[in-house]
Amino acid sequence: RIDGERLWESLMEMAKIGPGVAGGNNRQTLTDEDAEGRALFQKWCEDAGCTMGLDQMGNMFARREGTDPDALPVYVGSHLDTQPTGGKYDGILGVLGGLELIRSLNDLDIKTKHPIVVTNWTNEEGTRFAPAMLSSGVFAGMHTQDWAYDRVDAEGKRFGDELVRIGWKGEEEVGARKMHAFFELHIEQGPILEAEGVDIGVVTHGQGLSWTQVTITGKDAHTGSTPMPMRKNAGLGMARVLEKVEEIAWSHKPHAVGAAGHIDVYPNSRNVIPGKAVFTVDFRSPDLAVIEDMEKRLREDATKICEDMGLEVEFEKVGGFDPVEFDPECVGAIRSAAERLGYSHMNIVSGAGHDACWINRVAPSAMVMCPCVDGLSHNEAEEISKDWARAGAEVLFHAVVETAQI
Amino acid sequence: RIDGERLWESLMEMAKIGPGVAGGNNRQTLTDEDAEGRALFQKWCEDAGCTMGLDQMGNMFARREGTDPDALPVYVGSHLDTQPTGGKYDGILGVLGGLELIRSLNDLDIKTKHPIVVTNWTNEEGTRFAPAMLSSGVFAGMHTQDWAYDRVDAEGKRFGDELVRIGWKGEEEVGARKMHAFFELHIEQGPILEAEGVDIGVVTHGQGLSWTQVTITGKDAHTGSTPMPMRKNAGLGMARVLEKVEEIAWSHKPHAVGAAGHIDVYPNSRNVIPGKAVFTVDFRSPDLAVIEDMEKRLREDATKICEDMGLEVEFEKVGGFDPVEFDPECVGAIRSAAERLGYSHMNIVSGAGHDACWINRVAPSAMVMCPCVDGLSHNEAEEISKDWARAGAEVLFHAVVETAQI
Ligand SMILES: NC(=O)NCCC(=O)O
Ligand SMILES: NC(=O)NCCC(=O)O
Repeated sequence: RIDGERLWESLMEMAKIGPGVAGGNNRQTLTDEDAEGRALFQKWCEDAGCTMGLDQMGNMFARREGTDPDALPVYVGSHLDTQPTGGKYDGILGVLGGLELIRSLNDLDIKTKHPIVVTNWTNEEGTRFAPAMLSSGVFAGMHTQDWAYDRVDAEGKRFGDELVRIGWKGEEEVGARKMHAFFELHIEQGPILEAEGVDIGVVTHGQGLSWTQVTITGKDAHTGSTPMPMRKNAGLGMARVLEKVEEIAWSHKPHAVGAAGHIDVYPNSRNVIPGKAVFTVDFRSPDLAVIEDMEKRLREDATKICEDMGLEVEFEKVGGFDPVEFDPECVGAIRSAAERLGYSHMNIVSGAGHDACWINRVAPSAMVMCPCVDGLSHNEAEEISKDWARAGAEVLFHAVVETAQI
Repeated sequence: RIDGERLWESLMEMAKIGPGVAGGNNRQTLTDEDAEGRALFQKWCEDAGCTMGLDQMGNMFARREGTDPDALPVYVGSHLDTQPTGGKYDGILGVLGGLELIRSLNDLDIKTKHPIVVTNWTNEEGTRFAPAMLSSGVFAGMHTQDWAYDRVDAEGKRFGDELVRIGWKGEEEVGARKMHAFFELHIEQGPILEAEGVDIGVVTHGQGLSWTQVTITGKDAHTGSTPMPMRKNAGLGMARVLEKVEEIAWSHKPHAVGAAGHIDVYPNSRNVIPGKAVFTVDFRSPDLAVIEDMEKRLREDATKICEDMGLEVEFEKVGGFDPVEFDPECVGAIRSAAERLGYSHMNIVSGAGHDACWINRVAPSAMVMCPCVDGLSHNEAEEISKDWARAGAEVLFHAVVETAQI
C-alpha cells in the first residue's frame, strides 16, 4: 500500500508555492510560481531516484527504470498548473499521486517490468493561454507546436516566449515518446461520487467541449448624452447572448452544460457605453451531436440578437475536443484494482477535460477519480479528504503496477 | 473676435499628449500624461501673462488681472483629463477656449474690471477614480477632501497618492476662492444641436445622475463538471440585471437613460463559472424623481433576480448629482452673446455632468455648448468642426467679457 500521510504532506508542501488569497492556489502556467513548483517536483523525483526528461513544450517526464530494456514505459501523471483562483488538488493530486507510487515502489523494493514515468503536462488549465490541455494536445498531435507557441495571454505575451523565460523549455521532440499505457488520477470536480458515497470513480468516458470566443462590436458613446434609440451597447448585446447560452444548455438536460467564464468589455469605463464585448462560451456534453447543436444555436441566436440591435458579431473557436471513450483494458485495470482493495466504486463520465483525453488518442489510457467536497473545483475552497486522496492513489498504484508487469 | 485658427492649433497640440489608438486621446487623470498636459497648459498661460494658482486637489487657476482690485474674478474653464478611449475636445475645448479668450483680450488690449481666471478641474471624467467631477465637487463642498484622497483606481492606487506622485498637489485650500461667476464651454456630446443645425446650445439645465455599483456573489465552480442545477453563476445574474437596466431606462422615455459601462467578472477564466460580478449602473434624467425611481427599481429588481438564483447582491452608490438649473443671468449672458454675434442658438439640457454643475452651487454659473459630429463622445472618433469650436469660443468670450465689466 502507499503512504497516505506522505502524499498529503507533499500536496501541502506544493500548495505553499503560488498561494491564493483564500486558502487555494494561483500557480498559473508559465509564471514564476509554475517554475518554482516544477523545480520542487524535479527535486522530489530525483530524490526518489528518477531521471527527468523535458520536452520542447515543457512537459516533464520523471522515469523509474524497469527490468525489461525493451518494454515501453507505463505513464502516469496530470498537471501542476492551477486556475487563478484554483484549488490544491486539481491536477496536483495526479502528479504527486504518481510520485507517491514511485516512492512506494522504492519502499517496497518492487521492480516492474516496464519503466514507470511520472508526467507533469504544461498548461492543462488553459486559463492563461487557451485552449486547455495544450501540451498534451501537442504531444498527441492535435495541435502543431508552432501554433501552440503563438498562443497569447491577456497581456499579449506568447506561450513560446514565456516557456523560455521561465527556463523550462527542453530539447526533446514533443510526442516522440511511445507509451505502453497512460493513467491519470484526478479529483472528480463534480458532485456525483460524494453524493453516492462512493470512494472511487472508474472513468469510462469524458464529455466533449467547445469554446467559442464571441466578439460583439457596437459603438463607444457617452452614457449620459446619448439618447437610448441611438445606442449600440455591446455590453447589453452580450447580456442577451449570455441568457441564450443558459437557455441552450438547459434545453439539452440532463447532461449538457454551458456558461461564460471569461467576460471583458471595452473601454470598461463607468460613463462609456461599451463599444466592444469579448467573452468565451463553454459548452459541454458527452454527446458530440449535442455539442455541435449548441454551438450552431449560439452562432444563430447571437447573430440574430446582434442584428436586431445594430451590433456586429464575430465568432472564433478557441478550444474544443470530442467526447472520449477510454481504453477498456486500462479502465478494467482500475476497476479490478478498486475491487481488490475493497473500495466502493462506480463508472463515471468526466465532466472536465483532462490530459488523458488527448493521450488516449496515442496510447491506451484511463482515469481514476476521487470525490471532492460539494463537487467544488476551480475555486480556492476546493477540498478533498486525506482518505479520498489515499484511496485514489492506492487504486492508481495497483492499476499501474499490474499494467507495468504485463 | 477670437482667433479660431490659434484655438484649433492649441487643441491639436494638446492632443499630441497621451494619444489614443484610434485618433483620440488616453490622458486619464493623475497619469504621467495628465502631468504633461498640465505643464503645457501652464506654459501657455504664463506666456499669455497669467499667474498660475494650484490647490490641494490639483485644480489649476490661471489668472489675468482686472482693473478693480476689489472685484471678484470671473472664472471660465473645464477639464484636460480624458476617458481611456476619449476624444480631443471633451473638456479640452472649455479649457483652451478660456485660454484663447485671454490671448484675444491681450491681442485686443482689452482690460476687464474683474480679473479672469481659466481653470482646469482635476478628474472630471471619473473613469480612473469614481465619481466624476471629483475636484469641482470638493471645491463646491459636496465631498470632503479626505474622502476624495481615499478614492482608489482599479489597481488600488489612491487619488491622494497619485496627485502627489505626478507633482501637481498645490498648497492652496480647496474652495477658498470666491467667484463672480463661472462659465464653461463644452461640446454637446449628444446629437441635438447637429440634428437641428444650430450653432450654439444655451444650457439651461443639466440632467442628474446616479451611479450604483452592483456586486453579485455566486460561487466559482468548474464550467464542465458542475451540473446546471448546482450553479451559482454571478455572470448570468449580471446579464439579467443588465437587461433590467435597459428596461427601466426605456420605461421613462423619452428622457431617461441607463447603461453599465464598467463590468468585471471574477476570476475571469474561461472554465470557471464566475463567482463574482461587479458592475456600475449609470442612470440619468433631468427629473430627480425619475432618477430616484430608477435607482429603487434597480435595487428591487436585482435583489429579486439574485434571490431567485441563489446569488447575493450588494449595492454601493459611487456617484451622483441632482439635476441642475443654471443661473438665469449667466444663461442670459450666453444667449444675448449668441444673438449679438448672429449665431443660431437654442436652449438645451446637458446630458452629461460637468464641473459647472457643481460650481453652480457656490457661484452663478452657465454653459455654452457647440455641436459634435453624430453626437459622439467618450469615443476616440469624437469630432467637431473648426467653425463650431470658433463659434462656441466666441460666444464664451462675449458672455465672459460682458460679465467681467459689470
Ligand atoms: N480538469 C480541469 O479542470 N481541466 C481544465 C480543462 C477543462 O476546462 O475541463
Ligand atoms: N462631460 C463628461 O463627459 N463628463 C463626465 C461625467 C459624466 O459622465 O457625465
